[in-house]
Amino acid sequence: MSNEAPAFPPEVEEAIATVRADVARLHGELVRYGLVVWTGGNVSGRVPGADLFVIKPSGVSYDDLTPENMILCDLDGTPIPGTPGSDRSPSSDTAAHAYVYRHMPEVGGVVHTHSTFAVAWAARGEEIPCVITAMADEFGGPIPVGPFAIIGDDSIGRGIVETLTGHRSRAVLMQNHGPFTIGTDAKDAVKAAVMVEDVARAVHYAREAGPLVPIPQEAIDRLFDRYQNVYGQSTDARR
Amino acid sequence: MSNEAPAFPPEVEEAIATVRADVARLHGELVRYGLVVWTGGNVSGRVPGADLFVIKPSGVSYDDLTPENMILCDLDGTPIPGTPGSDRSPSSDTAAHAYVYRHMPEVGGVVHTHSTFAVAWAARGEEIPCVITAMADEFGGPIPVGPFAIIGDDSIGRGIVETLTGHRSRAVLMQNHGPFTIGTDAKDAVKAAVMVEDVARAVHYAREAGPLVPIPQEAIDRLFDRYQNVYGQSTDARR
Amino acid sequence: MSNEAPAFPPEVEEAIATVRADVARLHGELVRYGLVVWTGGNVSGRVPGADLFVIKPSGVSYDDLTPENMILCDLDGTPIPGTPGSDRSPSSDTAAHAYVYRHMPEVGGVVHTHSTFAVAWAARGEEIPCVITAMADEFGGPIPVGPFAIIGDDSIGRGIVETLTGHRSRAVLMQNHGPFTIGTDAKDAVKAAVMVEDVARAVHYAREAGPLVPIPQEAIDRLFDRYQNVYGQSTDARR
Amino acid sequence: MSNEAPAFPPEVEEAIATVRADVARLHGELVRYGLVVWTGGNVSGRVPGADLFVIKPSGVSYDDLTPENMILCDLDGTPIPGTPGSDRSPSSDTAAHAYVYRHMPEVGGVVHTHSTFAVAWAARGEEIPCVITAMADEFGGPIPVGPFAIIGDDSIGRGIVETLTGHRSRAVLMQNHGPFTIGTDAKDAVKAAVMVEDVARAVHYAREAGPLVPIPQEAIDRLFDRYQNVYGQSTDARR
Repeated sequence: MSNEAPAFPPEVEEAIATVRADVARLHGELVRYGLVVWTGGNVSGRVPGADLFVIKPSGVSYDDLTPENMILCDLDGTPIPGTPGSDRSPSSDTAAHAYVYRHMPEVGGVVHTHSTFAVAWAARGEEIPCVITAMADEFGGPIPVGPFAIIGDDSIGRGIVETLTGHRSRAVLMQNHGPFTIGTDAKDAVKAAVMVEDVARAVHYAREAGPLVPIPQEAIDRLFDRYQNVYGQSTDARR
Repeated sequence: MSNEAPAFPPEVEEAIATVRADVARLHGELVRYGLVVWTGGNVSGRVPGADLFVIKPSGVSYDDLTPENMILCDLDGTPIPGTPGSDRSPSSDTAAHAYVYRHMPEVGGVVHTHSTFAVAWAARGEEIPCVITAMADEFGGPIPVGPFAIIGDDSIGRGIVETLTGHRSRAVLMQNHGPFTIGTDAKDAVKAAVMVEDVARAVHYAREAGPLVPIPQEAIDRLFDRYQNVYGQSTDARR
Repeated sequence: MSNEAPAFPPEVEEAIATVRADVARLHGELVRYGLVVWTGGNVSGRVPGADLFVIKPSGVSYDDLTPENMILCDLDGTPIPGTPGSDRSPSSDTAAHAYVYRHMPEVGGVVHTHSTFAVAWAARGEEIPCVITAMADEFGGPIPVGPFAIIGDDSIGRGIVETLTGHRSRAVLMQNHGPFTIGTDAKDAVKAAVMVEDVARAVHYAREAGPLVPIPQEAIDRLFDRYQNVYGQSTDARR
Repeated sequence: MSNEAPAFPPEVEEAIATVRADVARLHGELVRYGLVVWTGGNVSGRVPGADLFVIKPSGVSYDDLTPENMILCDLDGTPIPGTPGSDRSPSSDTAAHAYVYRHMPEVGGVVHTHSTFAVAWAARGEEIPCVITAMADEFGGPIPVGPFAIIGDDSIGRGIVETLTGHRSRAVLMQNHGPFTIGTDAKDAVKAAVMVEDVARAVHYAREAGPLVPIPQEAIDRLFDRYQNVYGQSTDARR
């Protein structure tokens, strides 16, 4: 019977529970940092050791998100029948998340928002130049722009993967749309979503008031390298 | 005696109670999203199955709004004597809300704010161009400008109705004044008020930094169509 | 003994207690609307029926303001010895508040902030043009600029009084400094402080994106007249 | 054994406890005023009467900071083994803080943030002109720009010290990086961090809309002198 929940091995069940809790909680960070309004925006997290990921339901208020109403999907973005939350529709961006998980095995988390300043750059189809050291640390250079693509097929997911594959940046500004970010897990992708809006805003204000001072490429490289390898507590790099 | 509350059928009484609670609570969303200051802004909701709507009292602090002090009005905007709250004056924008309910039977909610960026476009009498996909989703094109009209007669209500009738947008920027939004119910109109400020802000910042990339009309049409029909949980479309 | 509290008539004691509570509480509105940082900004209220006013102590955190540490002053701005709070220094802007109370007997409240957008107009010495109806309602026209004046004598108070006497606006932008607002009582002056920042911000954004549409003077006059006389609950006009 | 905590005299232990509590709590002010996102930003405080200072751990959430996980360091920035928190890495900016404490004995607190508007000026390498009286009060003139310097050696600390030594300003905008502030203690440095963002924002908006009115140097001098000597309660100057 297709509506009976599959029996996952205990370690997978445990991983699912952890990711459900993380993904539900991490949506609160989008609210805290003002990256989303109403029900916009979504966070997903891959279940380690399984071809599964967890994502937010579509059109549900941020106040009402719980581990239990998060939706467990396979890597095609189809909810797993019989699991908690599977009676609701997953986020309308689920296909894009799924595409990323299928094509970027190193990615453990994906986030999408319509945060104001990132959207502003996206509406001009303009990459964000790397003129502040925090951006060099976090993204290793400019934030790139992805193609115009609309919902309904694989084109958003494909645009994300094509833009970010081999790129230092964990964030892409999909043209006329907004930022998608990836990370080693959901928390890392949320951090990238927070940081991309922060730098989008600072560089916006910087540039509208006069010419920017570039950072030498060699300094960008050194900052990026150090931050990826040294920053933070050793067990929790880059968080 | 004109001060005795009319006896409504039980199902209308129940509907009134629901709308009172919704309208009181939904004002909190205007505060949450920073759309209002002091006592500015107002939400109303039509009572399904009756020629009545519920609106906020005039000049009362957002902290003090309760279902009981919301004001029940007929479709001329006159408070129903003897009902809770009818000893206070309704919002000074009540005539405009009433005009909309009389002339747009499909409208179940109306919201007015002076949110910053929507007001900024209104002060230039300039429509907001549709350059972000979230705007295509939600409004199906540009946010139009309505005529300059001042309080005191039907001219604001007429301006709203004339601008929005037959228009995809649920929001109008009344020139030199601010946004009015409509919806299937109060919640839907509040969502439109939140979204119109969100896009007014993002497009403002986008455009001040350089040329915008237009979205092809055909893509706007597809996005609007999909969002109106598919997005969200099936029982609660577009929320 | 100068440190013994004077014996006020009971009705004055009662009025003092009310104003202390109002002034302490109203500082919270400055925080709520983001008009102040750290210990900047101050609210004062005249004690009805006495030559006294109540003001915030200097350099005390907003978290720590209570009715008891508000400072009761005479109309020269001197703390009344022996009254609660009189062991602390009053706000460094006390002389300006006192000057206003001495020279504008109709004023019952004074507020000063360094709110961002009002300060921005003040740093250019530029009045805010009246291009939004909320501004016509509240201020009846443009927000005027007062002279450059620095702390240490009567020049700030004099600049406020000279600018606002006979002016519709309850707000003045002191050049290179920031807004001072007046009102019938402390709450009314706080409302003016909230509204002046709100319109300073909206008109700033409006104008930086293109030409503003003026509002005809006759419409401004009608809006101002209506708002002063009709808006709000009859017992609490203009709140 | 290097992992055994040294035995400090009781008065130093008491001072350490006070500074741990202050530094942990003061990070909350960075959050309150929106100066930081995620784990960015850091506050440190010198331990009076000892060659020690207390700083935040690296990459730990603001929600999780407590007096016990603050890290006690010597003036080379090395955590004191065996003391609470010493099992974690101190802030990645610790070397810069330590350099300041070694070379500016009058400094009791150091703060670093990536606050938006201060970063925007820093990305242009442009000092903030002193056109508002609050800036004259607090900083006595323009906020200077320090050299471009990247993490990994003494160059950030040296840039701060060289720029601020003999300067009235307690804040420096390190080029392409962001603000560092100093103070008599951690609280005073946090206040400077709050104020530098406040003036960076106001002057940004002021200037983008038209020419600024300069403040005469003589007035700046009088304001700075008064504020340093008179403002606030006598036991707690400049807070």
